Amino acid sequence: MSKNDNISMSVIRRLPRYYRFLSELDNQNVDRISSIKLAQIMHVTASQVRQDLNCFGGFGQQGYGYSVRQLKEEITNILGLNNGYKTILIGAGHFGSALANHLQFDKMGFHLVACFDTDPEKIGKGIGEMTIRDEAELEDFCRKCHVDTAILTIPKEAVEKVISRLYALGIKSYWNFSHYDITGKFPDTIVENVHLSDKLMTLCYRMTN
Amino acid sequence: MSKNDNISMSVIRRLPRYYRFLSELDNQNVDRISSIKLAQIMHVTASQVRQDLNCFGGFGQQGYGYSVRQLKEEITNILGLNNGYKTILIGAGHFGSALANHLQFDKMGFHLVACFDTDPEKIGKGIGEMTIRDEAELEDFCRKCHVDTAILTIPKEAVEKVISRLYALGIKSYWNFSHYDITGKFPDTIVENVHLSDKLMTLCYRMTN
Repeated sequence: MSKNDNISMSVIRRLPRYYRFLSELDNQNVDRISSIKLAQIMHVTASQVRQDLNCFGGFGQQGYGYSVRQLKEEITNILGLNNGYKTILIGAGHFGSALANHLQFDKMGFHLVACFDTDPEKIGKGIGEMTIRDEAELEDFCRKCHVDTAILTIPKEAVEKVISRLYALGIKSYWNFSHYDITGKFPDTIVENVHLSDKLMTLCYRMTN
Repeated sequence: MSKNDNISMSVIRRLPRYYRFLSELDNQNVDRISSIKLAQIMHVTASQVRQDLNCFGGFGQQGYGYSVRQLKEEITNILGLNNGYKTILIGAGHFGSALANHLQFDKMGFHLVACFDTDPEKIGKGIGEMTIRDEAELEDFCRKCHVDTAILTIPKEAVEKVISRLYALGIKSYWNFSHYDITGKFPDTIVENVHLSDKLMTLCYRMTN
């Protein structure tokens, strides 16, 4: 856990997958696992497992393998999954509702504290365990509640309208489902984009070619 | 369009983004654009634009730039977006409904023909413009309708139960929202995975480190 600075994004993007598999093993009460066995169930090579985990200090012991629970806890800490970053959801449409109702944010480092929309038909209604708030209350709420992250499940044009307000409130981390290019406008933000239509078009390309 | 065989996946994954920007330009009635200007609005370098498009034959003319409509049409063909692959959705929960209601499948190469679920409470109800069908009818429907693709918006365990049936029906292309490793089981399938929780954990890591 001492040398996380120079880890490549491709290794980092594999960490959640390790976390998922180790959680399953832990749920099945598996105590320890060799890199060979772990690689097998993850459909990667044992040398990749060892290399990846060595980036973070290497937790295995020769001839013993990895302690499942310990490795899971190390990865939990590396990913910061206990940090409970205060998160708001902008957009209570189909996707916003699906995320609010479906994802276990608290297990993944985030704590969903509010959901905003501009649609009078939606404001005041329930979403997950929250009540949908008027986007006009954004500033008041965020100043009181010190929000870390915003999830954007609104179209590009709607993000264009609201992004400067969010940035001005000190929110510099985004989970972005729109096609708006946030880092293009605010280079000091941390953004994970989910471009569903791009994925679908890529699938189409791969089927066609 | 003659040499698509050896294109790297990273170039291919950028194509939908070109398609999106060119569609916007076309909607704004922009006739032609230089690689420099296109690069600017896409926040990439002009040399990347030229290199990427050269992979497919290069459509620009020195001193003229690219014809927006022509380039958009070329990319439409390269991606196969007019192919209308027959697609079924497995799982009419929050995410399935969000996809069925929200995405313009027909613009992205797919034609959504049916949605299946196992939940008696859901079967018979509406989703998008379809009626949710009983998963027990899967074989009958797919044999009649020659389905190309399945979208899986069900949990890993549910995919584990249904995937062999889908594969036996000749469906070898999947848009997979579950954590089930389809290519691990069936290496000759084409799969685009969307692992939302992995994205969220990656965001958490980047905020933490």
